Amino acid sequence: MLEQTILPPVFGLVGLACAFIVYALVKRYAEGEDNVRNIADQIHLGAMIFMRREYLMLALFAGVLIIILFASPGLGPSTAIAFIVGALSSAGAGWIGMYTATKANVRTTTAAHTQGAPEALSVAFFGGSIMGLAVASLGLLGLGIVYYFFGGDPHTAHHIHGFGMGASSVALFSRVGGGIYTKSADVGADLVGKLEQGIPEDDPRNPGVIADNVGDNVGDIAGMGSDIFESYCGAMIATIAIAATLSLVMLDNLTTGLAEPDARSALMFLPLALASTGLICSIIGIGIVRSRSSSNAALALRIGMMVSPVMFVAAAYFVINNLLDVSTAIWWSVVAGAAGGMIIGLTTEYYTSSKPIERIAKAGETGPATVMITGLAVGMQSVVIPLLAICGIIFVSTELAGLYGVGIAAVGLLATVGMTMAVDAYGPVADNAGGIAEMAGLGEDTRKITDSLDELGNTTAAMGKGFAIGAAALAALAIIAAFVETVSYNRGGDFSLHIGNPEVLIGLFLGGIIPFLIASITMTSVGDAAMEMIQEIRRQFREIPGLLEGTAEPDNAKCIDIATSAALKRMLLPGAIAVAVPPVIGFGIGAEALGGALGGALLGCVLMALTMANAGGAWDNAKKFVEKGNLGGKGSEVHAATVVGDTVGDPFKDTSGPSMNILINVMAIVSLVIAPLL
Amino acid sequence: MLEQTILPPVFGLVGLACAFIVYALVKRYAEGEDNVRNIADQIHLGAMIFMRREYLMLALFAGVLIIILFASPGLGPSTAIAFIVGALSSAGAGWIGMYTATKANVRTTTAAHTQGAPEALSVAFFGGSIMGLAVASLGLLGLGIVYYFFGGDPHTAHHIHGFGMGASSVALFSRVGGGIYTKSADVGADLVGKLEQGIPEDDPRNPGVIADNVGDNVGDIAGMGSDIFESYCGAMIATIAIAATLSLVMLDNLTTGLAEPDARSALMFLPLALASTGLICSIIGIGIVRSRSSSNAALALRIGMMVSPVMFVAAAYFVINNLLDVSTAIWWSVVAGAAGGMIIGLTTEYYTSSKPIERIAKAGETGPATVMITGLAVGMQSVVIPLLAICGIIFVSTELAGLYGVGIAAVGLLATVGMTMAVDAYGPVADNAGGIAEMAGLGEDTRKITDSLDELGNTTAAMGKGFAIGAAALAALAIIAAFVETVSYNRGGDFSLHIGNPEVLIGLFLGGIIPFLIASITMTSVGDAAMEMIQEIRRQFREIPGLLEGTAEPDNAKCIDIATSAALKRMLLPGAIAVAVPPVIGFGIGAEALGGALGGALLGCVLMALTMANAGGAWDNAKKFVEKGNLGGKGSEVHAATVVGDTVGDPFKDTSGPSMNILINVMAIVSLVIAPLL
Repeated sequence: MLEQTILPPVFGLVGLACAFIVYALVKRYAEGEDNVRNIADQIHLGAMIFMRREYLMLALFAGVLIIILFASPGLGPSTAIAFIVGALSSAGAGWIGMYTATKANVRTTTAAHTQGAPEALSVAFFGGSIMGLAVASLGLLGLGIVYYFFGGDPHTAHHIHGFGMGASSVALFSRVGGGIYTKSADVGADLVGKLEQGIPEDDPRNPGVIADNVGDNVGDIAGMGSDIFESYCGAMIATIAIAATLSLVMLDNLTTGLAEPDARSALMFLPLALASTGLICSIIGIGIVRSRSSSNAALALRIGMMVSPVMFVAAAYFVINNLLDVSTAIWWSVVAGAAGGMIIGLTTEYYTSSKPIERIAKAGETGPATVMITGLAVGMQSVVIPLLAICGIIFVSTELAGLYGVGIAAVGLLATVGMTMAVDAYGPVADNAGGIAEMAGLGEDTRKITDSLDELGNTTAAMGKGFAIGAAALAALAIIAAFVETVSYNRGGDFSLHIGNPEVLIGLFLGGIIPFLIASITMTSVGDAAMEMIQEIRRQFREIPGLLEGTAEPDNAKCIDIATSAALKRMLLPGAIAVAVPPVIGFGIGAEALGGALGGALLGCVLMALTMANAGGAWDNAKKFVEKGNLGGKGSEVHAATVVGDTVGDPFKDTSGPSMNILINVMAIVSLVIAPLL
Repeated sequence: MLEQTILPPVFGLVGLACAFIVYALVKRYAEGEDNVRNIADQIHLGAMIFMRREYLMLALFAGVLIIILFASPGLGPSTAIAFIVGALSSAGAGWIGMYTATKANVRTTTAAHTQGAPEALSVAFFGGSIMGLAVASLGLLGLGIVYYFFGGDPHTAHHIHGFGMGASSVALFSRVGGGIYTKSADVGADLVGKLEQGIPEDDPRNPGVIADNVGDNVGDIAGMGSDIFESYCGAMIATIAIAATLSLVMLDNLTTGLAEPDARSALMFLPLALASTGLICSIIGIGIVRSRSSSNAALALRIGMMVSPVMFVAAAYFVINNLLDVSTAIWWSVVAGAAGGMIIGLTTEYYTSSKPIERIAKAGETGPATVMITGLAVGMQSVVIPLLAICGIIFVSTELAGLYGVGIAAVGLLATVGMTMAVDAYGPVADNAGGIAEMAGLGEDTRKITDSLDELGNTTAAMGKGFAIGAAALAALAIIAAFVETVSYNRGGDFSLHIGNPEVLIGLFLGGIIPFLIASITMTSVGDAAMEMIQEIRRQFREIPGLLEGTAEPDNAKCIDIATSAALKRMLLPGAIAVAVPPVIGFGIGAEALGGALGGALLGCVLMALTMANAGGAWDNAKKFVEKGNLGGKGSEVHAATVVGDTVGDPFKDTSGPSMNILINVMAIVSLVIAPLL
């Protein structure tokens, strides 16, 4: 097996090499004129400042966790090292993605200005691809290395869980902190700029505009990337953990003809093998989109999103066959996961477009209250199909391969993450390019091209968001299954989460509280952080003479600094709750209560994540629908009503909603890490 | 035992007699002048029209269920008869409450006009008391009779479940249908009257005003009453069911010294004995409030709300001791339930007053969007303490008395329902009295008195709403526990709801979908039904010459008719979903999946009920806070922003939120009824 276990890290390196090649391609595009470059540099620097400060704070937070892990009997230095590798891999992916995205955005602007739409799309898509490849490659490289050292022996395999906890800690900071950052900057810039000073969006005189543009990268690139990274690695780690604890009967069922140790190590290695296959399929997919993008961009992105999973599912059949002799049961779990992910993505797309958003916009005729009610109703309704899809995935995969099947389904959904993330990260690059074009005053034609790229990005982003929720749900489910199996294995099978058991029931209720509490905290945080931004922007307009007239420069760095501090300060409480709740319940009440709590929290998080993301997306698009001239168009009463919906939707879809993905994964992985101690 | 089992129906009759005495006292107050009486008669008639049409539709719905129960092997005519008795008892309580409340409201107005505040409070409180006594007495009478015939033998005891299903069917129509009715009338009347025609609230020229006033009775009296009735009887039925399936060891634990059949029948009878005690305590409490109300009304209501539970808890000690020799374990469960209920009620009061509502009002300075965000955050945060209280109740009661303790805790919380409901129903009577005073033009002074009564009612109503949610949650939990025990008993102990079991897990997710789906449907229904009202009111203003000038009468009956049809039509889908989901999951997938679904639905319903009720209540009071002259007062931008919050809050707190209570209880009781068949 040894020769095989070296392959995932190697594939990871290959993926990274591809990312660097793409980066070289991006760099070949012209950066543009001085004023364009100046704005882009500020965004780039702002993003880097945020990353540096975030990672500094993260280092302190992680330091505490590392010491605790290090000192915990049964976990010790090995788990701590895995944690460090996990955190570094995730942080590295985020850093690469942010660094390159803020290089690609200005080149997209310039390509749109000088070369036209197809070239601009290429650069933007390349920018996104680097993030996609970095996530998949660094995940595979980091986890592959940890697996190489600890995965060979089922008795050391549990140290791998530390990797997931490291990745989740980064995700916590990037997604929750980033989510608060991006919305406080957005709200602050809009409120003072548009409403109080009456200057247009993305106006360079507004001191908050650079922070706002930094926020798009922070939230939608680094935040989204760390979210997906966490789910991607979490799914693999969970599957490895489940395989390590499988009974002999189950081993025999899943692999016809292999003896125990071989069967177990094959099943443990399988998720890494599948992810390696997925990475290759993603690289091919990215190539296909690139070659097709000049003729029909929308079609190219759609084909890319479909072609990689389909290729992967086909290739997975041979990989599984090769590793396990023959096991169609496991392959069907892969199919279920991939298909389920697509259904969830398409559902999100439906609920944030066409009929539902027209209903919301129409509700604007009777004012903002009916926009709110209709949007919330749409969001709540949108949970039905995704949850049915998850039930379908659970049914198919467990029917065929037990809880191991759930893990494999999650891996199946996430294996082609390189491609999904590429398409997803394309959106914010295009969005940023539009912002730069506006700030630099490049004129109508350029703006029209970047707008069309941006619009295309909104559709793919909707699918991406749904996909991220589905991925997080399934990964968390797999990790929870691994938690149950690990505790059960350590107790010799004597572990049941019977809901009729009061401990489990209490856990279920305690777990259900968490998503509502965290959603409440993060929503309030956005408002409070935005207030700090508003005060700073007002101060600058008041104290810097000539700012409004355009004869003086705003102090952009100060705004970035304030948004950064405000966001990082306010993400500590939700972060601490997410990390602390599992040990408090687990050691305080018992493993049964913790199991119940994970069930309750998973259910609550998935429901809230879908409701908030889809209501938020639908409000956003309802506003855009009106702005296109429907129902009175911009400036009408209906428009004002939909703007209220959009403002409520902002923290829903970009802060609180995405926080749910992280929350449940952090809780699940921390539980898995402490499982051997319970 | 026989001589004891006749006591609950006897106490029920005593309670009913008290209710009639109170009614006679109310009737002794003067009805008032012609114009006042005319308006009151219209409200009374409107309420009766709604009740008649609702019960007609209910009869059809119930007829189908009765036929199904009748034809089901294992349930048969006995369960069907219990269903009929349950439905008639609940419907009877609703009818008595509505009839008398719409007699008390006008007398409250006239007392305020001619006799002053203390007398007005007395009439209003008497009006509420009749509803409280009717709920408790008819519950005890009906359930007592059914118990008398089926409760003696553990093998026929399951027929009693039919009573709960009957009560739940009525609750479904009263609470969900009533909730849609009341808000569609409210929104319709406000939107056309205040916004389009510019006439004040409760203006008799507005054709929707009578319907609006009818709605207050329909929603807050009949709806609330049926909700509490369902929980009250559900808690007792669940406890009886759990007692019927207790193991010999458990029987011995709970009753020191009693032999098996005696111990079992004593434990089965205990909930009825406790409820009888609670009814007596409620009657005494009502007497105390009446005797004290003339000096300090607010204090009197508060003392009444506290004194009945405290008396009950003390009396319960002797009742338990008398029935079971000695069992402090069970008594502590009663204490836990009563204390928990109070904590939940007080939490609701906190979140819908003082600091939270000032925060929401203050958020109005930056527009309606921040009012929405802050209100939602408050609502979500408000789930924490009530859920911790529920966890505490579960912990204490199960630790001491197993799942039987959960049932007893629910009974302990609900036993003094006569008093709680009296204080709660006082609010809408006072509210209606104010409306009548306004419509009849009785002047400032009268209005001031009714306003002060109304304000007092808002506080008690907040506590009452929290109490209703807590009661519903605990009753549903007890019914679910009874379901688990019943299935387990029938399978010889071979029944576990292990969350790691895929069937249970799928059930958990399916169950979690339901509250979100129902909330979405009911929120949309209010909007659609309101639209029908709006069109009718617009039509009347357009087609009836002289209406706006006050020279012609509006066609109030037509508005009542339209709101009634619109509401009843739209409550069928959510009602059918609530009733159909348990058998579909139970027979389609299995009892394990159904158990999981009940767990997921319970969690989701409690979270959504608390969030929606408290966010809605907080928005309402934030608006009132501004209207008192704070932050710019009426007509300011802040006021406009809080009005948006209040409009969104209306369906939250009066339609969708309360529907959650019914939803989970209907699902639980239907599951318990079909448990023997699974």
